[in-house]
Amino acid sequence: MKQPIIIGIAGGSASEKTSISQQLYEYFKGYHKVVIIKQDDYYKDQSHLSMVERTKTNYDHPFAFDTDLLVNHLQLLKHNISIEKPIYDFALHTRSCYVEKIEPRDVILLEGIFVLAEEKLRNMCDILVYVDTDSDIRFMRRLKRDMQERGRSLDSVCEQYLHTVRPMHEQFIEPSKKYAHLIIPEGGMNFVAIDLLITKIKSIID
Amino acid sequence: MKQPIIIGIAGGSASEKTSISQQLYEYFKGYHKVVIIKQDDYYKDQSHLSMVERTKTNYDHPFAFDTDLLVNHLQLLKHNISIEKPIYDFALHTRSCYVEKIEPRDVILLEGIFVLAEEKLRNMCDILVYVDTDSDIRFMRRLKRDMQERGRSLDSVCEQYLHTVRPMHEQFIEPSKKYAHLIIPEGGMNFVAIDLLITKIKSIID
Repeated sequence: MKQPIIIGIAGGSASEKTSISQQLYEYFKGYHKVVIIKQDDYYKDQSHLSMVERTKTNYDHPFAFDTDLLVNHLQLLKHNISIEKPIYDFALHTRSCYVEKIEPRDVILLEGIFVLAEEKLRNMCDILVYVDTDSDIRFMRRLKRDMQERGRSLDSVCEQYLHTVRPMHEQFIEPSKKYAHLIIPEGGMNFVAIDLLITKIKSIID
Repeated sequence: MKQPIIIGIAGGSASEKTSISQQLYEYFKGYHKVVIIKQDDYYKDQSHLSMVERTKTNYDHPFAFDTDLLVNHLQLLKHNISIEKPIYDFALHTRSCYVEKIEPRDVILLEGIFVLAEEKLRNMCDILVYVDTDSDIRFMRRLKRDMQERGRSLDSVCEQYLHTVRPMHEQFIEPSKKYAHLIIPEGGMNFVAIDLLITKIKSIID
C-alpha cells in the first residue's frame, strides 16, 4: 500500500479554507480515498477546568491545540494505521467522550489555521496551501456567522476579533503564508484553483 | 479539434516566471502539445524612431507593448489557426524583420509582466498564475544578471530600478496579483507548485 499524501490547507478565520477542503472531499466522496482531518478537533482537552476557566482560553493561539496528538495521528495514518480522532464539544469547550475512527486513505486533507504555522504539522505535509482572503472580507463573514447563526452581539464579536482573532492572525497565521507552495486567493469560489487541486488528487488516487 | 487552454503566467521582473514557464514547456517538449508565447516578443515596433529615442522608451510600462497584436494572435491560436509571432531585437530596441511561425497547441503558456494587469490579456486566459517573489530577492537577481551578464554598472542598474522598474511594478504588476487564480511563491524552485501545473497540463493534453 502506498504512503498517503497529506495536503495542508491553512488560512485565517473565515478565509473559506473549510469550504475548499469540503469541496475537495465531496468531489471524491464515493471513492473512499480522501479524508479530512480538522485541526479544530484537536483542541486540548479541558475537562479538568471549570466552565468559567474554559471560556478564558485563547482559542486563536497555538497553545490551545494538542498538536502532539495530531502529529502522532498523522504519523499513524502515514503508516496506513487507522486512528481514533477526538471529537470536540464546542458547547462545553472541551473534548467530548466520543471518538471517530478514521481509516487510512490515499489523500489526507489537513485543514486548520495553524497547519502552516506549526513547524511539526508543516513538515508532515506534502503540499502546503494557504487560502488568502482579505481581512475585511474575513471579518465580515465572521461577523455575519457569529451574529446570525450563533446569536452573538456586535460588540462581543468586535471585542473578540480585536483582542484575540486579529492579533493572533498577525502574529502566527499571516507570516505562515511564506511556507505555502500555493496561495489560493479568495477562498471557496476560486473554482480554477479548486479544479487544479482536484486534478492533482485524481492523479494521486489513480 | 478542441480549443486550446491559455495559462497566463505573470509576476514582477526576475520573479522567475520565465523559469516556471520554461520548466513546464521542457516537460512536455516531446509531445508538441504546449507552446510558450512571451509578452516580451510583442514590444512595439520602433523602427520609425532614432536609436536615441528608442532608449528613452519606458519598457516597464504597458504602453511599450503591442497588446492588440498579441490579443489578435491569441484569438487566432484559440481558433486553431497558426500565427507569425514577431521576434524582437533587444540590441536594436525594435521588432526584427524575422517572424516565427507558431502552430496551435492544446496548451498555450502566456508569460509576461502584464499578463494579469492587462484586462484584454487576462480575459483570454483560462488559468491565471502570479509568481510572487519578494522585491529584495527580485532586485538582487536583476542586479546580478545585469552586471554579470550584460556588463552594466551598479549605478545604472539602481537608477533604472528606482526610476522605472520599481514604480511600474507598484503601479501595475503588484495590484494585478488580485486577479490570480493561483499565487506561486518564490519562483522556479517551487517544485510542488510546478508539479501541480504539470499535472493539470497532462490532464488537458491527455
